[in-house]
Amino acid sequence: MAAVGTMAAMGPLPAMGALPPLPTLGVPGVPELKPLTRYEAMRLGPGWSHSCHAMLYAPNPGMLFGRIPLRYAVLMQMRFDGLLGFPGGFVDRRYWSLEDGLNRVLGLGLGCVRLTEADYLCSHLTEGPHRVVAHFYARQLTLEELHTIEISAVHSRDHGMEVMGMVRVPLYTQKDRMGGLPNFLANSFVGTAKFQLLFALKILNMVPEEKLAEAVAATQRPKKAAIDHGGGAAGHHHHKAGNELGRAGNELGERAEHPGMVHVGAEQHLVGLEGQGLGEAEALEQHVGLGADAMAEQAVAEGME
Amino acid sequence: MAAVGTMAAMGPLPAMGALPPLPTLGVPGVPELKPLTRYEAMRLGPGWSHSCHAMLYAPNPGMLFGRIPLRYAVLMQMRFDGLLGFPGGFVDRRYWSLEDGLNRVLGLGLGCVRLTEADYLCSHLTEGPHRVVAHFYARQLTLEELHTIEISAVHSRDHGMEVMGMVRVPLYTQKDRMGGLPNFLANSFVGTAKFQLLFALKILNMVPEEKLAEAVAATQRPKKAAIDHGGGAAGHHHHKAGNELGRAGNELGERAEHPGMVHVGAEQHLVGLEGQGLGEAEALEQHVGLGADAMAEQAVAEGME
Repeated sequence: MAAVGTMAAMGPLPAMGALPPLPTLGVPGVPELKPLTRYEAMRLGPGWSHSCHAMLYAPNPGMLFGRIPLRYAVLMQMRFDGLLGFPGGFVDRRYWSLEDGLNRVLGLGLGCVRLTEADYLCSHLTEGPHRVVAHFYARQLTLEELHTIEISAVHSRDHGMEVMGMVRVPLYTQKDRMGGLPNFLANSFVGTAKFQLLFALKILNMVPEEKLAEAVAATQRPKKAAIDHGGGAAGHHHHKAGNELGRAGNELGERAEHPGMVHVGAEQHLVGLEGQGLGEAEALEQHVGLGADAMAEQAVAEGME
Repeated sequence: MAAVGTMAAMGPLPAMGALPPLPTLGVPGVPELKPLTRYEAMRLGPGWSHSCHAMLYAPNPGMLFGRIPLRYAVLMQMRFDGLLGFPGGFVDRRYWSLEDGLNRVLGLGLGCVRLTEADYLCSHLTEGPHRVVAHFYARQLTLEELHTIEISAVHSRDHGMEVMGMVRVPLYTQKDRMGGLPNFLANSFVGTAKFQLLFALKILNMVPEEKLAEAVAATQRPKKAAIDHGGGAAGHHHHKAGNELGRAGNELGERAEHPGMVHVGAEQHLVGLEGQGLGEAEALEQHVGLGADAMAEQAVAEGME
């Protein structure tokens, strides 16, 4: 009877293998993971390993170049293996709850941030002889709290070992359609990290779903060219250029709109269009950098006034 | 006569267009840039723009997982546009020397690091209607000095704006042949940054040339598969798995050699082989991460003793 009472308190059991209608990512080009409820995940047998990772983010009122809303600061890390991922790791449920295990790992690198069940976002599973269920958490912080975590990270024992550095994820897309989130998504991610990033950005309404799809599509356009040009990254970039060259005037106009950017920004933009020695493609990526350089020059100029 | 005297003091003029025998990169798959001497670069006309970027690095006696020599800490940054690059920018030679201009830009984000002509490494040019010559500097610091710069960066006004975070470059290659430098090189770089990184690592004898070639080759292998599987990154990773699956036992052996890693490392490695929901490929990348997770667990265990 006690057992029955307990079961009743835990709610009805779903039929094995049947997933409730949980949200999917639905972004073309990104393989779906099988979602399951926390309740289902907790009922998986000892043959399953549980990983817990967390996305820490904060509303960010800042404007890049005084013009592009940053919207949110989202933390990821460059790992020892050269891949981008979220803080977290595997949790041995023989000893710890998911949250205790996650907080232990986070505590090593990020100082005193403690997540709870209220921060739980989703679980996704994979099947095979060795089974893993990936739990994902998201915690909204203030920008000051998030910055404090970045400072803790650079002082932590993990820094320069398992973690090569924390980075913020650019959520915006610049007018060249590659600068920002698309370029970022073209980097290399570990395991489920890229899926979890896109999933969280969608579920938490941090980036419109169509923007996510556009960003992912932009990173896949170059794949074909990588073969055409044989040169791997070079071909990849050249193809980008093909897609983006048409936007040069547009981008130039964008800079011209930007007070204080007209001289340096526009001039260096033109330079960037042909410069930097790896052909038009890299030049076109570089011209995005020229914006930053231009801003740097501006900042110096302001500093001198 | 004064002019002649000056010219004599500056040394003989090389024939126009003739480049002295300067070192090249010579890494297959990475397009060569045209090298030129600083002397030649300084004689380029006002139609040329000059960019200056710097690689800050420090000898690092640390061992990853107590087993993999880190050798050097090398600083790069994740930029606002989602690309990896070196600190620096364009220098307006109408007002500044190359070093003054570079130091002004560096000062914005990295605190008090000042480079001199002694840190000059190389110049590479590109031709076209708009001309850019890219100057590159390298300064060896102590690990403490480099860490101080990382701390300055996270406190700087640029942090979270033009610079989304500083990262260290993994110079090692793990036994799966992707973890470390190869994965890192598969990320997205701005303009000449990837060339300059490889060039500096070769010229400064920080990574053996054959290791650089192997790392670049490893990042290009997947390109074909990106088409075969149509899924962009998914195909990319799946192909990696095809290349790397054979090494699983090897990697497992590697973990087993590692004191304290046998239980957690080996067990989680096996889980990783099939886990993480994006198929064998990502699982194989994840298994690299499992090393870190395993270490985290270890660290926690130590912390508890």
